[in-house]
Amino acid sequence: MAEISAHTAAPKGPRPPLRIALAGLGTVGAGVIRLVETNAALIARRAGRAIVVTAVCARDRHKDRGIDLSPYGWEDDMTALAARDDVDVVVELVGGADGPALTLARNAIAHNKALVTANKAMIAHHGLTLAAWAEAAGVPMRFEAAVAGGIPVIKGLREGAAANAIERLYGILNGTCNFILSTMEDTGRDFADVLAEAQAKGYAEADPSFDIEGTDAAHKLSILSAIAFGTRIDFASVDTSGISRILAADIAQADSLGYVIRLIGMAEVDERGSGGKPGLFQRVQPHLVPFDHPLAHVDGATNAVVAEGNFSGRLLFQGAGAGDGPTASAVVADIIDIARGYDAGFEADATFSIPVADLTDMAPAPRGHRLGRAYIRFIVADRPGVLAEITAAMRDAGVSIESLIQKGRAEEAGEVLVAMVTHEGPESAVSEALRLLEGSASLAAPPLVMQILGN
Amino acid sequence: MAEISAHTAAPKGPRPPLRIALAGLGTVGAGVIRLVETNAALIARRAGRAIVVTAVCARDRHKDRGIDLSPYGWEDDMTALAARDDVDVVVELVGGADGPALTLARNAIAHNKALVTANKAMIAHHGLTLAAWAEAAGVPMRFEAAVAGGIPVIKGLREGAAANAIERLYGILNGTCNFILSTMEDTGRDFADVLAEAQAKGYAEADPSFDIEGTDAAHKLSILSAIAFGTRIDFASVDTSGISRILAADIAQADSLGYVIRLIGMAEVDERGSGGKPGLFQRVQPHLVPFDHPLAHVDGATNAVVAEGNFSGRLLFQGAGAGDGPTASAVVADIIDIARGYDAGFEADATFSIPVADLTDMAPAPRGHRLGRAYIRFIVADRPGVLAEITAAMRDAGVSIESLIQKGRAEEAGEVLVAMVTHEGPESAVSEALRLLEGSASLAAPPLVMQILGN
Repeated sequence: MAEISAHTAAPKGPRPPLRIALAGLGTVGAGVIRLVETNAALIARRAGRAIVVTAVCARDRHKDRGIDLSPYGWEDDMTALAARDDVDVVVELVGGADGPALTLARNAIAHNKALVTANKAMIAHHGLTLAAWAEAAGVPMRFEAAVAGGIPVIKGLREGAAANAIERLYGILNGTCNFILSTMEDTGRDFADVLAEAQAKGYAEADPSFDIEGTDAAHKLSILSAIAFGTRIDFASVDTSGISRILAADIAQADSLGYVIRLIGMAEVDERGSGGKPGLFQRVQPHLVPFDHPLAHVDGATNAVVAEGNFSGRLLFQGAGAGDGPTASAVVADIIDIARGYDAGFEADATFSIPVADLTDMAPAPRGHRLGRAYIRFIVADRPGVLAEITAAMRDAGVSIESLIQKGRAEEAGEVLVAMVTHEGPESAVSEALRLLEGSASLAAPPLVMQILGN
Repeated sequence: MAEISAHTAAPKGPRPPLRIALAGLGTVGAGVIRLVETNAALIARRAGRAIVVTAVCARDRHKDRGIDLSPYGWEDDMTALAARDDVDVVVELVGGADGPALTLARNAIAHNKALVTANKAMIAHHGLTLAAWAEAAGVPMRFEAAVAGGIPVIKGLREGAAANAIERLYGILNGTCNFILSTMEDTGRDFADVLAEAQAKGYAEADPSFDIEGTDAAHKLSILSAIAFGTRIDFASVDTSGISRILAADIAQADSLGYVIRLIGMAEVDERGSGGKPGLFQRVQPHLVPFDHPLAHVDGATNAVVAEGNFSGRLLFQGAGAGDGPTASAVVADIIDIARGYDAGFEADATFSIPVADLTDMAPAPRGHRLGRAYIRFIVADRPGVLAEITAAMRDAGVSIESLIQKGRAEEAGEVLVAMVTHEGPESAVSEALRLLEGSASLAAPPLVMQILGN
């Protein structure tokens, strides 16, 4: 290297600090303050400028949050916060799809502030409108923390995998469900029991339905789909089911067959789609995951996302899916990107990887098109002929059974659990079989269907 | 959202195509051409402009590479390639730490072209000099493909985890070694046997020493260390050992104790360091990885990198560590970043996360400071007193033994394998014990030490 003369970077003047206004001082908001204080020096080195919190806003000024708020300006009113002259970036950590969070986001953009948010519900419902507005105003809008906590998966898709057509996207997107399922697996306990423990420990909300019914995972999936496939966010079309009907017996059956059960969000483009045009298939559903799949080893509140690119192959991003530290890490990563200037003034740097106006409007693809193997579990009356009735319905619908287990239920006398795994076939055939069985007096409960995740 | 008026992005003129010159048309170079052709439309949407290959250069113009080179200009001479007026980015895929690759990189920067390279050896040896030059010239230099193939781990560290002090960084960085180790594990076969198969299949080079002795992993580790810890690249100080001495019996012992064996590259800051200042500890060594650790499930030629941030917690990036498609995916991701403009004109956007002039010069930390558990395997003569000699040395050096297995070797009559796992203690104690045993007539071969990866 002797020929390379000893160049050094020409001295440049320091860039002014990037000034942050923070709305919402719950655990994540307090985490962001702690992070910005703790790592101030290294953040300034990496961002090329200091990142300073100028002002904060929350409901109660005097609540003890374990942090000293005296260095920061206080606003009682979020509208005033977004309008301050001494602010470059508004960080929205208020939460809720609509209401104050949305008003704040709108005001931030209207005042030409960059917007950083961790609000998955708001992005899933209003992200396109907000992005159109932000792009028109030329201000960056970033939401890494809205999906999968501290894992930089939005960056991974938007930039790291940008050279690829994504063929399939799937992952574990809700830490509460994963905690419950992996605890059921480790302990053999039932859903309600583990949920109660999770609530007592603060891992699950008092009203857990948002998590356990799959809504939260569906919000995240719809955001990732837009980035991966260049389609408009379509949360309403995510085929969503939760984990509340999973029995300890299902987990035991899955285990004996070589699987764990995980709540999987998955999306892919269906070339047959609807009406001859490609369609977008999005689903949140508990799946059976083979022991040798990386997602089978994701335990506790961890999240993990797999993107399959046509050149990259399978990329896996894994880490803490929630918590104040990891979420703050993602929020501040977005702020550092803005401080570095990655987002400023580049028309191509569009919010969802491409400009929002260019996202395609892809119709939802029907699930019946999909080919796969399924786990189907029935709870039936313990009397002769029931198994014949079920297997006849399968035959008539063209569902081929790979394995079947029938087992008495200790906890419910007179009831029997029948669990089967199908050979690969169209999902429409399984639906048809269940339709044939609808209303049958033999069924003590609606059947539970879970897809088997392919490798 | 009714109050948000229907803003749409103002129409803007198209940006000119980004023009690429590509040097080196091996499997990766051909992969880049295929990728840019196959995904041209979506790359243009995401980059906000077309990415076009203007000219290529390789040794043999007429070799059949399975791609049509007629659309591209041809240069016989890489110096001419770097000087072309119709080129914005030079992609170096020639390989080799010095020689033509380095000359090309230097010429590209000298002609104010952006530089994208997959060359880990060149970056490990000359990356600081090249980066200083690129930063002074104000041109981006990117090398995502140099580490862990298609996995966007450099981006993940440089940007995704930018808010964090990284406490530890470790991972599986060499696909050839991981293929060999996981095949030994699956089949019970010996190292030499599996290596020969890997060579026959093209997974290992005819001269495999670069991979199996850990040099390739050490190159990658030294690059990641610089980004994670803000230190100057220090490849020479990586404490490197390879996998060639691992026996099928080691893998069997590890399995019986609840571990797999993986070649791990790891780096961390040692606050005690040397001479009172913090030091950087970097090591490539086969490790015992507990079954319940995510890296224990990384099989075949897959790579995986874990970064532990002080707020993010453990982040895992996993995917294909080599191959034309994945490597091309990383090369083109860098090109798309440049096309989007992320790299242009921002002084803070430094090559190794901070400007190269600001990287600290951290002395290597001695391994003896580290606390950990170790697996130590001896091959000894099968005669009385040998075990007493070994255990006495352990006692005298203060090494506490957690478990010990002695086993006759079927393949070598008169030799016995003694494998032990230590309790947690300083590595210096293990070194001292081995020093006490040095030259002992009881040892038929030098002992093999592998650290146990903590959770």
